[in-house]
Amino acid sequence: MARFIKSRKISNGTAPGSLIFIGNKKMEKSKIHLMLYNKDLFSEQWIDGVDEIPETVEENMIMWLNVYGLQDTGLIAAFGEKFSIQPLELEDILNTDQRPKVTEDDNSINIFLKVLEYREETQKVHGDQISLVIGKNLLITFQERQANYFEPIRERIRNNKGRLRNSGSDYLAYSIIDTLVDGYIHTIESLGSSIENMEEEVLTQTKREIIQKIYNLKTNIGFIRKNVWPLKEMMLFLNKTDSKFITKKTLTYLKDLLDLTTQAMEAVEIYYNMTNDYLSIYHANVGNRTNDIMKVLTVFTSIFIPLTFITGIYGTNFDVLPELHFRYGYFIMLGVMALIAAAMLYYFKRKNWL
Amino acid sequence: MARFIKSRKISNGTAPGSLIFIGNKKMEKSKIHLMLYNKDLFSEQWIDGVDEIPETVEENMIMWLNVYGLQDTGLIAAFGEKFSIQPLELEDILNTDQRPKVTEDDNSINIFLKVLEYREETQKVHGDQISLVIGKNLLITFQERQANYFEPIRERIRNNKGRLRNSGSDYLAYSIIDTLVDGYIHTIESLGSSIENMEEEVLTQTKREIIQKIYNLKTNIGFIRKNVWPLKEMMLFLNKTDSKFITKKTLTYLKDLLDLTTQAMEAVEIYYNMTNDYLSIYHANVGNRTNDIMKVLTVFTSIFIPLTFITGIYGTNFDVLPELHFRYGYFIMLGVMALIAAAMLYYFKRKNWL
Amino acid sequence: MARFIKSRKISNGTAPGSLIFIGNKKMEKSKIHLMLYNKDLFSEQWIDGVDEIPETVEENMIMWLNVYGLQDTGLIAAFGEKFSIQPLELEDILNTDQRPKVTEDDNSINIFLKVLEYREETQKVHGDQISLVIGKNLLITFQERQANYFEPIRERIRNNKGRLRNSGSDYLAYSIIDTLVDGYIHTIESLGSSIENMEEEVLTQTKREIIQKIYNLKTNIGFIRKNVWPLKEMMLFLNKTDSKFITKKTLTYLKDLLDLTTQAMEAVEIYYNMTNDYLSIYHANVGNRTNDIMKVLTVFTSIFIPLTFITGIYGTNFDVLPELHFRYGYFIMLGVMALIAAAMLYYFKRKNWL
Amino acid sequence: MARFIKSRKISNGTAPGSLIFIGNKKMEKSKIHLMLYNKDLFSEQWIDGVDEIPETVEENMIMWLNVYGLQDTGLIAAFGEKFSIQPLELEDILNTDQRPKVTEDDNSINIFLKVLEYREETQKVHGDQISLVIGKNLLITFQERQANYFEPIRERIRNNKGRLRNSGSDYLAYSIIDTLVDGYIHTIESLGSSIENMEEEVLTQTKREIIQKIYNLKTNIGFIRKNVWPLKEMMLFLNKTDSKFITKKTLTYLKDLLDLTTQAMEAVEIYYNMTNDYLSIYHANVGNRTNDIMKVLTVFTSIFIPLTFITGIYGTNFDVLPELHFRYGYFIMLGVMALIAAAMLYYFKRKNWL
Amino acid sequence: MARFIKSRKISNGTAPGSLIFIGNKKMEKSKIHLMLYNKDLFSEQWIDGVDEIPETVEENMIMWLNVYGLQDTGLIAAFGEKFSIQPLELEDILNTDQRPKVTEDDNSINIFLKVLEYREETQKVHGDQISLVIGKNLLITFQERQANYFEPIRERIRNNKGRLRNSGSDYLAYSIIDTLVDGYIHTIESLGSSIENMEEEVLTQTKREIIQKIYNLKTNIGFIRKNVWPLKEMMLFLNKTDSKFITKKTLTYLKDLLDLTTQAMEAVEIYYNMTNDYLSIYHANVGNRTNDIMKVLTVFTSIFIPLTFITGIYGTNFDVLPELHFRYGYFIMLGVMALIAAAMLYYFKRKNWL
Repeated sequence: MARFIKSRKISNGTAPGSLIFIGNKKMEKSKIHLMLYNKDLFSEQWIDGVDEIPETVEENMIMWLNVYGLQDTGLIAAFGEKFSIQPLELEDILNTDQRPKVTEDDNSINIFLKVLEYREETQKVHGDQISLVIGKNLLITFQERQANYFEPIRERIRNNKGRLRNSGSDYLAYSIIDTLVDGYIHTIESLGSSIENMEEEVLTQTKREIIQKIYNLKTNIGFIRKNVWPLKEMMLFLNKTDSKFITKKTLTYLKDLLDLTTQAMEAVEIYYNMTNDYLSIYHANVGNRTNDIMKVLTVFTSIFIPLTFITGIYGTNFDVLPELHFRYGYFIMLGVMALIAAAMLYYFKRKNWL
Repeated sequence: MARFIKSRKISNGTAPGSLIFIGNKKMEKSKIHLMLYNKDLFSEQWIDGVDEIPETVEENMIMWLNVYGLQDTGLIAAFGEKFSIQPLELEDILNTDQRPKVTEDDNSINIFLKVLEYREETQKVHGDQISLVIGKNLLITFQERQANYFEPIRERIRNNKGRLRNSGSDYLAYSIIDTLVDGYIHTIESLGSSIENMEEEVLTQTKREIIQKIYNLKTNIGFIRKNVWPLKEMMLFLNKTDSKFITKKTLTYLKDLLDLTTQAMEAVEIYYNMTNDYLSIYHANVGNRTNDIMKVLTVFTSIFIPLTFITGIYGTNFDVLPELHFRYGYFIMLGVMALIAAAMLYYFKRKNWL
Repeated sequence: MARFIKSRKISNGTAPGSLIFIGNKKMEKSKIHLMLYNKDLFSEQWIDGVDEIPETVEENMIMWLNVYGLQDTGLIAAFGEKFSIQPLELEDILNTDQRPKVTEDDNSINIFLKVLEYREETQKVHGDQISLVIGKNLLITFQERQANYFEPIRERIRNNKGRLRNSGSDYLAYSIIDTLVDGYIHTIESLGSSIENMEEEVLTQTKREIIQKIYNLKTNIGFIRKNVWPLKEMMLFLNKTDSKFITKKTLTYLKDLLDLTTQAMEAVEIYYNMTNDYLSIYHANVGNRTNDIMKVLTVFTSIFIPLTFITGIYGTNFDVLPELHFRYGYFIMLGVMALIAAAMLYYFKRKNWL
Repeated sequence: MARFIKSRKISNGTAPGSLIFIGNKKMEKSKIHLMLYNKDLFSEQWIDGVDEIPETVEENMIMWLNVYGLQDTGLIAAFGEKFSIQPLELEDILNTDQRPKVTEDDNSINIFLKVLEYREETQKVHGDQISLVIGKNLLITFQERQANYFEPIRERIRNNKGRLRNSGSDYLAYSIIDTLVDGYIHTIESLGSSIENMEEEVLTQTKREIIQKIYNLKTNIGFIRKNVWPLKEMMLFLNKTDSKFITKKTLTYLKDLLDLTTQAMEAVEIYYNMTNDYLSIYHANVGNRTNDIMKVLTVFTSIFIPLTFITGIYGTNFDVLPELHFRYGYFIMLGVMALIAAAMLYYFKRKNWL
Repeated sequence: MARFIKSRKISNGTAPGSLIFIGNKKMEKSKIHLMLYNKDLFSEQWIDGVDEIPETVEENMIMWLNVYGLQDTGLIAAFGEKFSIQPLELEDILNTDQRPKVTEDDNSINIFLKVLEYREETQKVHGDQISLVIGKNLLITFQERQANYFEPIRERIRNNKGRLRNSGSDYLAYSIIDTLVDGYIHTIESLGSSIENMEEEVLTQTKREIIQKIYNLKTNIGFIRKNVWPLKEMMLFLNKTDSKFITKKTLTYLKDLLDLTTQAMEAVEIYYNMTNDYLSIYHANVGNRTNDIMKVLTVFTSIFIPLTFITGIYGTNFDVLPELHFRYGYFIMLGVMALIAAAMLYYFKRKNWL
């Protein structure tokens, strides 16, 4: 299965805007969490369907609906109808391979992005899709599985910490994206550490596993890169939009987020280049190692081959071979061989091969 | 024959706008399929020539003419005359190596693109040209061979599924392009799978076929890339045009298509870089394998060469060679040789060559 | 001599705008061809100097002057004076290493480009400069040698084929550029074929000539690239200019030419990258071949070195060497050696070296 | 620990704008240095807290507050309150891994950048964060440790040298950034010298340490690059801003700084590419060295192996081996061997291997 | 000393705009050459100081002051005062490592660029800084050493050739820059010739000096590149400026210069890439050569090792070794060995190793 693109195969030939869930079913039954709050009040509950959502909400109340699990296309359609979400956007919510993007219409701003997680068991970075629908005093978030990415934010709402209770749904959305981007940076940092820690190994060793490690890190960095680049586009869009759903106060925070995303992107590029450098250093070291092996071979061969040749001469059975009959012939031969060996060693020493 | 560019050789020196079919004849006789529909009515039939096309169509009726086969330049010219298509555009329809592009005039929007198909027998991605002429309540599509790329769309029209029957010819054109882009993504996905599946092989083996496989995948990805880049340009153009033939409602869909194209493009880039990485990993592995081979050679040679030298010494025929007459001379020699071999093995063990 | 840049050495220190011919003299004496035509009339003749050019031309007549040979600076100066061509532009006409460019003033649009030709004898792509001066009902073309690049266009004028006789000098200029760009595409196509045809060779062989062939193709592609890039700039300029010398009708054709240039440029990039891929594949294959050679060496050495060692042992002349006196000693030795050889062969088989 | 990105881990899940010190505590207790000056007057003192800062300052007096040490978040918060610095900016001051950037609001311009230092002991370039808050007649600078980066500027104020005493706080800020950028250029120059000085070594040697040295220089250049790129963005911003805190007079100086930054950036790119070239030259040299080693091995082996073979022949014990009984058999053999050796040497000489 | 950047070390910590000479003192005493001219009159003389410059000049007279030698900061300061040159610009004149740039204020346009010279003795391209101050009817040029770069221009003024005597100081400045750019192109051409002439050598040889030559050419091309890129920026600026010191007539010439600079830049890129190609071809050739050496080794070893093994067998001293006693044993052995050698040779022939 291709990791970097997923065909909308099932939907191929079906009408655009048809609601078909594209992805792996990651939980049994969808769940909905409802939160209502303003400066003074706060309530939360688990609900089962769209019909349990209160029809009217007090003017200054923020409603946050968090949908866990996307396989129930009927539920998503019901959401679409109730909150006037466009069919194409519903389709995007269900297509979990959606490229991070932001769309905007009269009713809402819709943001699609990924939460990134490094999983030890596969040694790969995985991404789950998070979709945000920002409306007036309303935020709906859709996620593929029941994971508590946003629990700290709920805690802040419950305990009335920070600006959340005093701000609108745009600030809530910002907080969520901020949490996700922090997660990106955390993932990049941990991959980056792995990469930097390999330095010693890469500079000194030529084990074959190193290349697999480098490649694995490189692919993961590539996966993050694929998700961070469109994130920057998205941030630029949100910083420039004049949508009524984003207040001027929140813009300052979005600018900060843009800076953060840029920083993440630059770090990703640096680490990506680093893996390339590693490949090329590894390669040079392999060549160097070949030289080392060759030197050992050459030194051994070059010393012993002439010596063996000499023994060969005196091993011949010629009738007339005067040296054989010298009294100290054998010892002279040993001496000569010692001299040759010493000369060779000196030669290799001078060549810096020893 | 060059695969990435095709000279308009025959037309070299002829007047621009002359109708000459450039390509391989892919069917015997051109065929025309005519479809007429609106919200309530629907009819379709095969016709033989331009004269069978109804002169007038009811106001709110959409007419879709699908021409199969381009070798009949007379037919194309008749189309040109009947629907006031510009000579240059007719020329582009017939030049099947046309770069994907879009042109616009008072009478129509003209879109030229490719349908991509991976063919097992050649192991190559091939592209057939599809040309679209969008007029008022009119869509003409030209294709090189009789292939049912758009059958699912016709089914949707026949069964009145989706928005097609309630929308204009621009939405019909969008549906067709959407189908083609889905096909691109499908092709990229399947090439991408092949590339990702090679990973294990590339990381561990050095067979010569691997490099041919990598190169084949790379060329195919390059072929897709050549067609996807101008597609993005085209989408940007269609999203910005203020042509009367594109309604505001369809614009939303075109924006979605732009996002899809961007995603396709990014995936293509990722896979393209991956094949480059493969080349460089393969290369490093070949170097590593050289080291492995060298180690075997060096270990064997370095152990046996000194031993053989010793046997050489005692194979000489000197009159005076005391050791030969020692009682246990032979066994002492064997022992010394065993010691030397052990020392060498220990040395190579410590060097991690064994 | 540098092929990619030519110093205006002679003119170094002389005043800008001085008329000095920079290039290789490619014909003995300059020649001028004069063509006059409109919808109804047509005449052509060879003339010798500027004074033979008719003083006044009927209102709706187009005059095309084609100058062959640039070494006669006096002639060029006379042209400059007669048609009010600016000194800097005259200088550019004479500097045959001029970068393709377009300039515009009140009197004319001036276009400088190259005709590209692949010459078998040098195996190099060569470029001759073509300069166009477009005025009202006037086109002057300057070329370095007497080559009939534009004969097909003249034929079309003579035979009144296509739009030429009914259009202005801008359309004539367009036709000429179109012919040149067709030539570019033809050259790219033929180089491209050579490159694609090398694929098999590059993937399977390591002959040293391959690298020379790759490099030659690469340099030629690089030479074309150098000329195609500024061509695109030129096309963009001509598409955006509001000069009175370019009619709206011709603009459509220029847009088509822009598309063609873009296509040429993209093909050039693809082939350029392909030569880079070839270099890197060649390189990997060389490494692979080293492995193959090493394997043969290692297999031979590793099998025979231990065997030779054994013969060495029984070649020693120790007084006491019991095995020598065994009845079947010799045959046992042969058997042991056969066993060792078989074991080694099995070992290399398992290592996949055989 | 990743060197190129630092997760705001502690703050993960906490509200944005919370004041948390991210970095390594580099001094025990924060210190504040206060400077007051105008054209005529000048005073300076060390103070302990925000309450010691004079409430009102005379109209034309410039106040420069330099805070050393950031671990005391209470102090930073007090500064924030007293001078109305935005919470997000306070957060940025405390986050010492902040990407160099500039923010602007009604109360101040806030600049975050790094001072770069090459430390011998780690052989790495390190960066300490410097934050500047520019207000009306006010400059606050925050730095992580007690280092006298700005002492020369203070000296100029004390001695009334240059324009400082006659200019506003924007010029003071400019002087500080100018000092930092000078430091960058100094660091780049010293790394650049190291890189250029390696040239000889890289071109002629293949010691394994060279690759480590190259990589170390490359990483350091990469670290500087990471800080210089955003600096250029910052300079462009400051050159275009219409903030009331930057006077037109200072703009000229900022433009000069922009040029300087561009120069630094270009030098960084050149040195970065140089390290890449070094890697590739090193690599080629390693291959060359393999050739040299191989030549020695091949020459030795190819000369002695045939000779040894000949001695082998005459070492056999055949009953009938006529040559053995020739009178000068031994000497003829020696002569033949000398001839063979000479022929081999000549062959290798001609091959240029000796 | 770093060649690509020079720290303003001495000025580090001093006030911006302080006049400090940064560079190597290239002549003993500064000299000033004064030229006055208009259409009709002309005079020139050497002067010693600013006080000898005529206070008033006739309305339509152009004054050109050429200062040779920059070490006398007092002189430069005097110039600054007399002609109201801004301190920062004076600083730039004295900082001879200034990046090529142009600044503009109410009094003047200031241009800083380099004259490039290839020096045989160092085999390096060196750059001396030229600064131009263009005022009303005034041009001041500063250069580091007494070199007659502009003598041809003076000749043209003296002899009233070309447009100089009839044009303003902007045209004079243009002429000077044109001369410098011609010099660039000349330098690029000569380096380019060296690069192109290496082709044969690079394609066929693997001498170690080749890599040093390639690297030297590459560094020189890199040095030119560093100076040409900002030159293009400068040209773009001068083409767009609406400064009163540049007349419309001169603009045409500046556009021509822009084209020339672009051409220079493109040639530099081509040659830069060519050196990269050379490195990679060299590298592939080294690998190929390894193969050649290995083949010789393998052929020799593989033929003689089995033969020597056979002699070893018949050199053993077994009591029972029947073959030794065959009448033609020795000759049969020789025959068998010849057969083996022939078989091996055939095998290597078929493998194309011979």
